[in-house]
Amino acid sequence: MRLSGYFVPTLRDTPKEAQIVSHRYMLRAGLIQQASAGIYSWLPMGHRVLRKVEQIVREEQDAAGAHEILMPTIQAADLWQQSGRYHDYGAEMLRIKDRHGRDMLYGPTNEELVTDIFRSHVRSYRSLPLNLYHIQWKFRDEVRPRFGVMRGREFLMKDNYSFDLDHEGAIRSYNKMFIAYLKTYARMGLRAIPMAAETGPIGGDLSHEFIVLAETGESEVFCHRDWLTDDIRNRSIDMEGDLQPVVDSFLGRYAATDDKHDPSNCPVAPEDLVVTRGIEVGHIFYFGTKYSDPLGGRVAGPDGREVPVHMGSYGIGVSRLVGAIIEASHDDRGIIWPEPVAPFRVGLVNLAVGNEACTGVCDDLYAQLGAAGIEALIDDRDERPGAKLADMDLIGLPWQVIVGPRGLRSGVIEVKDRRTGATEEMTPEAATARLAA
Amino acid sequence: MRLSGYFVPTLRDTPKEAQIVSHRYMLRAGLIQQASAGIYSWLPMGHRVLRKVEQIVREEQDAAGAHEILMPTIQAADLWQQSGRYHDYGAEMLRIKDRHGRDMLYGPTNEELVTDIFRSHVRSYRSLPLNLYHIQWKFRDEVRPRFGVMRGREFLMKDNYSFDLDHEGAIRSYNKMFIAYLKTYARMGLRAIPMAAETGPIGGDLSHEFIVLAETGESEVFCHRDWLTDDIRNRSIDMEGDLQPVVDSFLGRYAATDDKHDPSNCPVAPEDLVVTRGIEVGHIFYFGTKYSDPLGGRVAGPDGREVPVHMGSYGIGVSRLVGAIIEASHDDRGIIWPEPVAPFRVGLVNLAVGNEACTGVCDDLYAQLGAAGIEALIDDRDERPGAKLADMDLIGLPWQVIVGPRGLRSGVIEVKDRRTGATEEMTPEAATARLAA
Repeated sequence: MRLSGYFVPTLRDTPKEAQIVSHRYMLRAGLIQQASAGIYSWLPMGHRVLRKVEQIVREEQDAAGAHEILMPTIQAADLWQQSGRYHDYGAEMLRIKDRHGRDMLYGPTNEELVTDIFRSHVRSYRSLPLNLYHIQWKFRDEVRPRFGVMRGREFLMKDNYSFDLDHEGAIRSYNKMFIAYLKTYARMGLRAIPMAAETGPIGGDLSHEFIVLAETGESEVFCHRDWLTDDIRNRSIDMEGDLQPVVDSFLGRYAATDDKHDPSNCPVAPEDLVVTRGIEVGHIFYFGTKYSDPLGGRVAGPDGREVPVHMGSYGIGVSRLVGAIIEASHDDRGIIWPEPVAPFRVGLVNLAVGNEACTGVCDDLYAQLGAAGIEALIDDRDERPGAKLADMDLIGLPWQVIVGPRGLRSGVIEVKDRRTGATEEMTPEAATARLAA
Repeated sequence: MRLSGYFVPTLRDTPKEAQIVSHRYMLRAGLIQQASAGIYSWLPMGHRVLRKVEQIVREEQDAAGAHEILMPTIQAADLWQQSGRYHDYGAEMLRIKDRHGRDMLYGPTNEELVTDIFRSHVRSYRSLPLNLYHIQWKFRDEVRPRFGVMRGREFLMKDNYSFDLDHEGAIRSYNKMFIAYLKTYARMGLRAIPMAAETGPIGGDLSHEFIVLAETGESEVFCHRDWLTDDIRNRSIDMEGDLQPVVDSFLGRYAATDDKHDPSNCPVAPEDLVVTRGIEVGHIFYFGTKYSDPLGGRVAGPDGREVPVHMGSYGIGVSRLVGAIIEASHDDRGIIWPEPVAPFRVGLVNLAVGNEACTGVCDDLYAQLGAAGIEALIDDRDERPGAKLADMDLIGLPWQVIVGPRGLRSGVIEVKDRRTGATEEMTPEAATARLAA
């Protein structure tokens, strides 16, 4: 993509409404723009990140055997009246009357609607287990929306719903999601820790939150240092096998948030204890028959007797994750995107667009990177070199390739690793080879 | 995908609320389920088609130089008050008050919001032309929603917005979209005809609708028979060149809907005139400064003087297209998906799941198709052969591979072309080779 014809409206100054680093950088890097309180438009670069995060979430759901559907944003109130949550949900639910005066709402979650889909079609235990997910916009009318996409009113969420014949099956489904979540976050370059959690308005008696570690996170986290080195991607886990020992191995390792951690009673030796901060990016629930009972989600079991199905629900805040990734990965010059979610892998900076040699080398490099399947953004704007380098650090692509007249006189360009800041001079050919490796 | 563990709730009987063929087949093939009046959930197979249609739309927008963004579904009323459309729009607009009593609405279209994004960031003609698109759910509170996804209340639409310095530039942008639309429909196996149209509540003085031909379409269409043989994919069109002659070549060929066609004054000889039916699936508008004037979308021109930008907007009903494709491509046994939008390319029918030879051959074929990158759905359910074959015709995958004990005794299976109904017996190896070709 050529920046001159693209739409990346970077800002020099920090918008004063932005209180946290992800919100500041998302506005400054031209990723989002506020449409109204707690409601954002995603500009081209932000949209690319959002789609990459969404795609990783999708792939791990598919790999865990969940099936993607798409439920609407606007729901009728009647199902919520049947489940008893219509009045429980309070002012956070955006309530709407349609032109015929019918009570509608903008879905904050979908337990009722998915149970309605289930009860319309599934009659027998032979159709189980079933796990349906969707990635759809939700609305929660927060009293005081803030922190950008971290606590918006309209937000993109992956939520899914598992249906099993009995408690034992439901726990198997729950464990699959538990592992799928850890894999999902790891693929985005995040360290996530599952922690026992309250169930709140969703209900049920088994629940875990997933907290990703981020130096500027919203809450303090205390954990064993093994959390910082273990990478689930290095473990070979049979998703069809018994996952309980794997889940137990994670849950057996100490981790607690501020409100649960008791320094005087901590099982971890001080030298093994890490104190850091974190952000909640996922929440999973097992709630048995809480919704299938009132809504009639029942199947015939092997003995022919009808029983309500055991359900779980599982949520990942997809738009929130974009903010969380920035909280976990930035410096004082800007964002540092982990490669799997970077809007482009390489930023190609032409320091002198009026210089034929520079422009020729940049165009060649851009073509070669494209041919190698590497997404590159080329800064071909007629701007000062300092402004271009500052913008490139701000938007945080993993690799920068900097082409200037001085280097070219010796036949070299500069390759910079955005994370470490390390730079290396090399020929354009060597740069292409390095980045394609 | 294995049908036994998937979620494709086909129906034997036609739901009585479905008046048109696409609605009937979408319900019967388990593609969608009504959530409330005019609002649908997309079940796994329907969701796959929706995503493929969406992706084709996206690719052609990208190829035409438009940039993808994502605006929210919920908008504040104030911008609509500035443009004057808040009261104009009438009862079709879903109006909402948030918890603080602020007037909000569910966007039926996005001219106001995108102009707000534009005016916040673009100052100079040097940033033009700019074309921003998004693919987002919209809501129009139809008095009497009907015909399934063809006239729903919540629907997925690709809409985009072009910004140019002057009328001439705006016409260039308009022409690009005109051609991109024709390519988009052609890639889905549809024949689309552009027709001069009224501008309605969007405004402006230049507008075309795109009507796809479908035997069961909503309106009668009269056109020159060249429309039925010309395929834009066979034309080599330079999208950066002058598109006016190309656009003119399309517009010079006769086509009119019922209300415009005058049999006593038709320029086409009777032997060249085709009378068929069609469905509107796209609409493009040039409306000059209608929104940039009141909303302050202005740039400095080359002479430094500020002028309002000339805008166009362009819409494709993505969810509606799924219905339109079925209207254009079906028979009395079910849907016939064009390959580019088919949920799977091949349906593999195991006629005897209890038979080891059949199941072995099916599993091998399924693995080989997968290895060849061919999406296959394997019907491994323990159902009667007749029901399985009827379901496979109903869901309409382009190719069927039917494996039964009788054929296997002679070492052959059956490959069926869903569109023509032609079947051919061959070895499993020959079938894989044929389908991978």
